[in-house]
Amino acid sequence: MHIRIINPNTTAAFTRRCVTGAQEVAATGTRISGGTSAFGVASVECHSDEALATAGVIDQIRRGEAEGVDGYVIACFGDTGLDAAREMAKGPVVGMSEAALYAAALIAPLFSIITLPLRTRIFAERVLWHAGLERRCPRVRAIDVPVLDCEDSPAAMLEPLLAESRLALDQDHAEAIILGCAGLQLVGPASAALGVPVIDGVSAAVKQLEGLLSLGLATSKRGQWATPPRPVPMRRPGD
Amino acid sequence: MHIRIINPNTTAAFTRRCVTGAQEVAATGTRISGGTSAFGVASVECHSDEALATAGVIDQIRRGEAEGVDGYVIACFGDTGLDAAREMAKGPVVGMSEAALYAAALIAPLFSIITLPLRTRIFAERVLWHAGLERRCPRVRAIDVPVLDCEDSPAAMLEPLLAESRLALDQDHAEAIILGCAGLQLVGPASAALGVPVIDGVSAAVKQLEGLLSLGLATSKRGQWATPPRPVPMRRPGD
Amino acid sequence: MHIRIINPNTTAAFTRRCVTGAQEVAATGTRISGGTSAFGVASVECHSDEALATAGVIDQIRRGEAEGVDGYVIACFGDTGLDAAREMAKGPVVGMSEAALYAAALIAPLFSIITLPLRTRIFAERVLWHAGLERRCPRVRAIDVPVLDCEDSPAAMLEPLLAESRLALDQDHAEAIILGCAGLQLVGPASAALGVPVIDGVSAAVKQLEGLLSLGLATSKRGQWATPPRPVPMRRPGD
Amino acid sequence: MHIRIINPNTTAAFTRRCVTGAQEVAATGTRISGGTSAFGVASVECHSDEALATAGVIDQIRRGEAEGVDGYVIACFGDTGLDAAREMAKGPVVGMSEAALYAAALIAPLFSIITLPLRTRIFAERVLWHAGLERRCPRVRAIDVPVLDCEDSPAAMLEPLLAESRLALDQDHAEAIILGCAGLQLVGPASAALGVPVIDGVSAAVKQLEGLLSLGLATSKRGQWATPPRPVPMRRPGD
Amino acid sequence: MHIRIINPNTTAAFTRRCVTGAQEVAATGTRISGGTSAFGVASVECHSDEALATAGVIDQIRRGEAEGVDGYVIACFGDTGLDAAREMAKGPVVGMSEAALYAAALIAPLFSIITLPLRTRIFAERVLWHAGLERRCPRVRAIDVPVLDCEDSPAAMLEPLLAESRLALDQDHAEAIILGCAGLQLVGPASAALGVPVIDGVSAAVKQLEGLLSLGLATSKRGQWATPPRPVPMRRPGD
Amino acid sequence: MHIRIINPNTTAAFTRRCVTGAQEVAATGTRISGGTSAFGVASVECHSDEALATAGVIDQIRRGEAEGVDGYVIACFGDTGLDAAREMAKGPVVGMSEAALYAAALIAPLFSIITLPLRTRIFAERVLWHAGLERRCPRVRAIDVPVLDCEDSPAAMLEPLLAESRLALDQDHAEAIILGCAGLQLVGPASAALGVPVIDGVSAAVKQLEGLLSLGLATSKRGQWATPPRPVPMRRPGD
Repeated sequence: MHIRIINPNTTAAFTRRCVTGAQEVAATGTRISGGTSAFGVASVECHSDEALATAGVIDQIRRGEAEGVDGYVIACFGDTGLDAAREMAKGPVVGMSEAALYAAALIAPLFSIITLPLRTRIFAERVLWHAGLERRCPRVRAIDVPVLDCEDSPAAMLEPLLAESRLALDQDHAEAIILGCAGLQLVGPASAALGVPVIDGVSAAVKQLEGLLSLGLATSKRGQWATPPRPVPMRRPGD
Repeated sequence: MHIRIINPNTTAAFTRRCVTGAQEVAATGTRISGGTSAFGVASVECHSDEALATAGVIDQIRRGEAEGVDGYVIACFGDTGLDAAREMAKGPVVGMSEAALYAAALIAPLFSIITLPLRTRIFAERVLWHAGLERRCPRVRAIDVPVLDCEDSPAAMLEPLLAESRLALDQDHAEAIILGCAGLQLVGPASAALGVPVIDGVSAAVKQLEGLLSLGLATSKRGQWATPPRPVPMRRPGD
Repeated sequence: MHIRIINPNTTAAFTRRCVTGAQEVAATGTRISGGTSAFGVASVECHSDEALATAGVIDQIRRGEAEGVDGYVIACFGDTGLDAAREMAKGPVVGMSEAALYAAALIAPLFSIITLPLRTRIFAERVLWHAGLERRCPRVRAIDVPVLDCEDSPAAMLEPLLAESRLALDQDHAEAIILGCAGLQLVGPASAALGVPVIDGVSAAVKQLEGLLSLGLATSKRGQWATPPRPVPMRRPGD
Repeated sequence: MHIRIINPNTTAAFTRRCVTGAQEVAATGTRISGGTSAFGVASVECHSDEALATAGVIDQIRRGEAEGVDGYVIACFGDTGLDAAREMAKGPVVGMSEAALYAAALIAPLFSIITLPLRTRIFAERVLWHAGLERRCPRVRAIDVPVLDCEDSPAAMLEPLLAESRLALDQDHAEAIILGCAGLQLVGPASAALGVPVIDGVSAAVKQLEGLLSLGLATSKRGQWATPPRPVPMRRPGD
Repeated sequence: MHIRIINPNTTAAFTRRCVTGAQEVAATGTRISGGTSAFGVASVECHSDEALATAGVIDQIRRGEAEGVDGYVIACFGDTGLDAAREMAKGPVVGMSEAALYAAALIAPLFSIITLPLRTRIFAERVLWHAGLERRCPRVRAIDVPVLDCEDSPAAMLEPLLAESRLALDQDHAEAIILGCAGLQLVGPASAALGVPVIDGVSAAVKQLEGLLSLGLATSKRGQWATPPRPVPMRRPGD
Repeated sequence: MHIRIINPNTTAAFTRRCVTGAQEVAATGTRISGGTSAFGVASVECHSDEALATAGVIDQIRRGEAEGVDGYVIACFGDTGLDAAREMAKGPVVGMSEAALYAAALIAPLFSIITLPLRTRIFAERVLWHAGLERRCPRVRAIDVPVLDCEDSPAAMLEPLLAESRLALDQDHAEAIILGCAGLQLVGPASAALGVPVIDGVSAAVKQLEGLLSLGLATSKRGQWATPPRPVPMRRPGD
C-alpha cells in the first residue's frame, strides 16, 4: 500500500517533516512517500496562494497516478486542492483537516482548531462547513504568525499554542485540540501539558486513508468528484 | 491491540456475523473479539429497545475494561449506547453509524443511508445530526422489514436494497450508499451491482478505531464524556 | 384526569418535591401522583446514568398504564427516557425541559437555561436541538455543583443561580430564565430578584399535559413514536 | 381568568366560530370573549392584509387592556400582529400557529401544516422559523382556495383537506396534521378519517394561555417585547 | 427613471436627509423623490411602531403607483413594510437593510451591524434571516439611544458609533461596518476613522434599485409577493 | 469607470458574448472591456478546471491592475477564483453567481438555478452557501449538456431551459429563474415564455459593481480578503 503525502507548497523541508510524522504512525506494510510541488508558493496563507498551490497538487496527483500510488494525503490545513485531487486520482484522497475533524468528533463532543496565521481562519471555517462540524467546533482560534516562521522552528510555537489552547478549553469548553497547521510535531508536549487529546491532521489522515484502502473504498466516480470530462491541461502561463 | 465488537442486542448469531466481518478487515496484530448483551432485546427497533440495549452495552464495557480491551465498536445502526460507552471506557469507542458517515464523507459529496425498518429512520436522523452530515445525506431511505428477518437471511435483503439504492442514486443524486444495519454482508454484491461505493459501518469503525489506537487517541476525559462522577450501579429491577 | 410525575431517579425526596410543585399548579380535577424509579441511579448526571434511568422510566410507564394513568410528566432536566416513554404510553407524555422551552418561547424572544452540573450542558443542548430552539437560547449556562447537593438544600442554590442568571441577562441578552433542574422551588424568589420570568419545567409540563389531555391529543401512533413492534422485555441482568 | 380571542380580521362570523371552539375546550373558570377588528381586512391573505390587520390587533389589545383582559389568543394562521400584541399587553399573548406547532411537537416527531390559500405558505414558513421547528415540519402544504370560501362553509373543506393530508402522511412521513386556518371545526372528522392527531391552533392556544396564566407567567418586559418606549399613536390616515 | 425614497415614519426632516443622501449617489438620469408617511409614528423603535408604519408605507406605495414612480427604497432599518410594498408595487422595491447586507457581502467575508436603540436588534436579526446572512454577521451591536436623538444630531452619534465599531472589528473580527439606521450621514468620517468600508443602506439600495430597473427586473408576480387578491382597503380606525 | 469582464476560461468567443451582454446594460460612462484567460481550460466543468482557471483569473487581475481597471466581474457560474481575485485587486470584484442570487432575492421569495452540466450543481451549492441563500433556492436543477455545446449555440438551449424551468415553477414553487451559465443571451425569450423574472448573472454583476464603484466601496483590506502577505508568484510548471 503506497501512500503519497502531498505537500501543496514548494518547501521541501516541510514535506520531509510531514513524511517523518506519517512514517511514525503508518502500519507495517504501508509505504509512505512525499511530494513537494514543483511550482506554486512557499506556503499557503491566502486564497491566491491556495489557487496556485492547487495547480501544484493536480500536477502531483498526475505524477502519482503514473507511479501507481494507491492513495493521497493533502498535507496542508485547509485541504488545498482536495476536490480537484479527488477528481484526478483513481484511489482515495484524504485531507489533513477533514481527517483531524473526524478524529476529533470521535473522541470529544466539542473541540477547537488552533490555526495560524489569523487570516487563514477562513479556511478552517470552510473545512468545518464541508465536514458539517461547525456545531462541534464553536470557535476557530489563531496564533497570528506567518506559516514559514512556524515551519522554521515549530518548537517555538509551543508556548503560544498552549496559551491559545487554554483559552479554548476555558472559554469555549473545548475538550480536544486540533493543530491547524501541518508538520508542527507538537502533539506530544501539547497533549501532556493540556491534559486533553491533541490531534495532528496528517497522522489522522494517514490512518483514515489506510482504512479506506484496506476496505477497498475509493472516491465515487459517479457524480461530482468523477474523473474530469476532458483531459485537464497543464499549460504554462504564456505558452 | 484488542478490539471488542459490541453487539447491543442478545442475538449471538448476529454477533458472530459482525465479528467475522471485522476480522476480514482488521490489520495484522489486531485481535477482534465479540460481545453479546447478556440481557436486553433481541434486536433494536425502537427507542424502548434502545434504552434497554444501552444497559447491556454498559455492562459489556464494564466487562471489557476488566479484561483489558483497548477499544470498542458499537455494532448497531444508531450507535446504541455510544455516549454512555464513551463515559465508561478508558479507550476509544466508535459507532458503526458515525464511522460509516465519516467514511462516506471522504469518498462522496452526497450519499444515502438505506436503513431498516422504516421507524428506525429516526435513529439515522439523530446520527446525522450528531455527525453534522445532514447536508451531505439529504434523504434517509428504508426497507420496511423487521431487523431479525434480515438477520436470518441477509442475502434476501439484496434485491430490496438494490431497488431502494437505485432510487437514492437517481432521485437523491446519491454517489455512495451506506448500509443502515450491521452484519448484512452485502457490500460486495451491492457495490458490484450499483457501481458506486457501498459502506458497511462495522468495517469502517474497525479501521477508524485501529487508527485512533495507533495514534494514542482516546475519548477526552475533560467534559461531557468524562468518567461518571459516581460509580454507575447496575442494580436489577426490583432488587 | 390522572397525571403521573415520573422521577427518573431513585430519590424519593426529590419525587415528593416535584409532586408538591405540580399540585400547586394543577387544575381543579387533575389528580397528581408521583413515581420514583425502583432501580437505576440516585441522580442523572451523565449519559450512563441516563441510560439506566430510562429503564426505570419504562418500568414506571408500564406500571402507570396498568393503573390507568392518563398522561405523564418526565421530571428530570434532559427529559430522560422521553422517546421510550412515548412509545410505551397510550396517552401523552411531556418532558419538563421541552415544556420549559416552549413556555419560554411564548414569553421571551431570547432566554437562557441555567443547569447544573457543568457536564449536563450536553443534555440541554440535545433538548434545544430536539425542540428546535437553539437560536432562541444562544448559550446554556451551568452552576457546577452535583445534583444531589442541590436536592438536599435547594435554597442554597439561590445565590449561585442569581449570579449566573445575571450574567445571562447582561451578556447573552436573555429575557427569561429556565431552571435547568427539577424540584428547585426557586421560581418565586428568583423571579422577584431578577425581574424577568423564571420558568420551572415540571410546572410548565403539567399545564401543557393538561392542555393536551383536555384537547384529546395523544402521541401519534403512526411512525416513530408508535407502540414497540414486539413486547419490550424487562429482564434483569444475569437472569 | 378572562381570555380574549382576537380575530385580526373584520368578519364577525369568523370570530363567533373561533369563540365557540375556544369555549368548548376552556377550563372551568375561564371566561372566553371574542374580538373582531373594527377596521382592516375581511380576511388575511397577503402581507398587505397582514399589516392592516395588525393595526386592528393593536387596537383590540388596547381595548382589552382597558377591560382588564388577562391574556390573548391571536386567532389567525400566521399569528398576525403577535409581536406588537406582546408589546402592548401586560399579560401573555399566544398565537394559534405557534401553539399548534408546540402541541404537535409534543405528540409527533414529524408533522405537516395544511394551509390555505397557496400564497400564505410564506406565513407558515415564517412561523416555523420563529418557533424553530422547520426540521420537524419538512413541507408546508396548501389547499388553494380563498380564506373566505372556507369561512363560508368549512365543511366543504373536509375532502380537500383529507386529500392533502394523505399526501403529507405518505410522501412527507408526517405523523400529525396541523390545520393551517382558524375556525375550521374539522378536527373531529379529520382525525377520525386520518387516524393521526389533527390539531386546531386556537384550541391549542387557549390551553397554553391558561397554562401560562395559572403559572403567573407573562411576556418578559425586559428587552425586545417590552412596552413601547413611547405611546403608540393610532392616528387615522389623513388626520 | 423615478425612484421614491419612502420614509416609513412621519418625520419630514428625516426624509429630507435621506433624499439628500440618495441624490448624492444617484446616476445621471435618475430622479429621486421622497415620501413621508402621512400618519403612523415619528420613528420606528418597536414592533407596534413597525405595524403602524407599514400602513403608512402601503399608503405611500399607492400614491407612488398613481404618480408613475418606477421603483421604491424603504428608508428605515428593518425594512419596514417591505413585503407589503412589494405586493402593492408593480416595479421593484429594495429595503435599505437588505441592500446594505448584500453590498457588505460583496466586499467583506464578515461584517457587523451597529444599530440603535438596543431593542431594535430584533429587527436586524430578522433581516439577517431574510437575507440569509446570519453566518456572515455573527453579532449585531447597538448604541442604546432613541432614534430621534440620532435624527436630531447625527454627528453626535459619531463617537459612540466608532467605539462600538472598534469592538466589532476587534472582538467579532468584522471587516466592514453597516450603519443600522437611515440618514446618519456618517459614512465619510466613520470609514476614514476605522479604515474599513462603512455602508449606508439607503445609498446601497438606490444603486441596487437602479440596477434592477435598468435590467428590466421587477418583483415576481407569481406567488408570494403577487398583487393582493382583493383591493387592500385603507379604512380609518372607527370609520 | 472601467469594468473588466473576466472570462476565466480560454474561449474568446465566450468572452465576446459576455462583453456584448454587459455593454447592453452598462450605464453611460461605464467602459466595459473583456479578458480571456491566456492559459487554463476551454470551459470550467469540474474542480480541476476551476483550479486551473483560477490561476488564469489571478493573471488577468494582475494585468487589469496594471491597466488601471476599476472593478471586475467574474463571468463564470460558480464565481471561479473570486476569493483570490478579491485579494489581488484594489477595487471591488463581483461574481456573476452571487450577483444573480442577490438580484433574485430582491424580487422573489423563492427562486431556482438552472445550471449545466449536472456535475456543476456542486458549484451552485457552494455559491448558495457563500451567499447564505440556500433556504431561498431549495433545489438546484441542471440541463445535462457540456458547457461548450451551449456556448456554440445558446439558442438551442432555450427549449431544455424552459422545460426545466417549468418543473422549477411547478414542483419547487420557484418564482424567478437564474440562468446558471454565463453568456446564454436567453433572458428575453425565457422570461417572455415563463412569465417570471429570468436573471443573467453577468448583467446583474455589472450593475452591482457599478453601484459599489459609485459608492466608493471596495473589498475590505482588513482580514480575510486582504492583499496577500507576500507577492504571489506566477511561476510556470517546471521553471
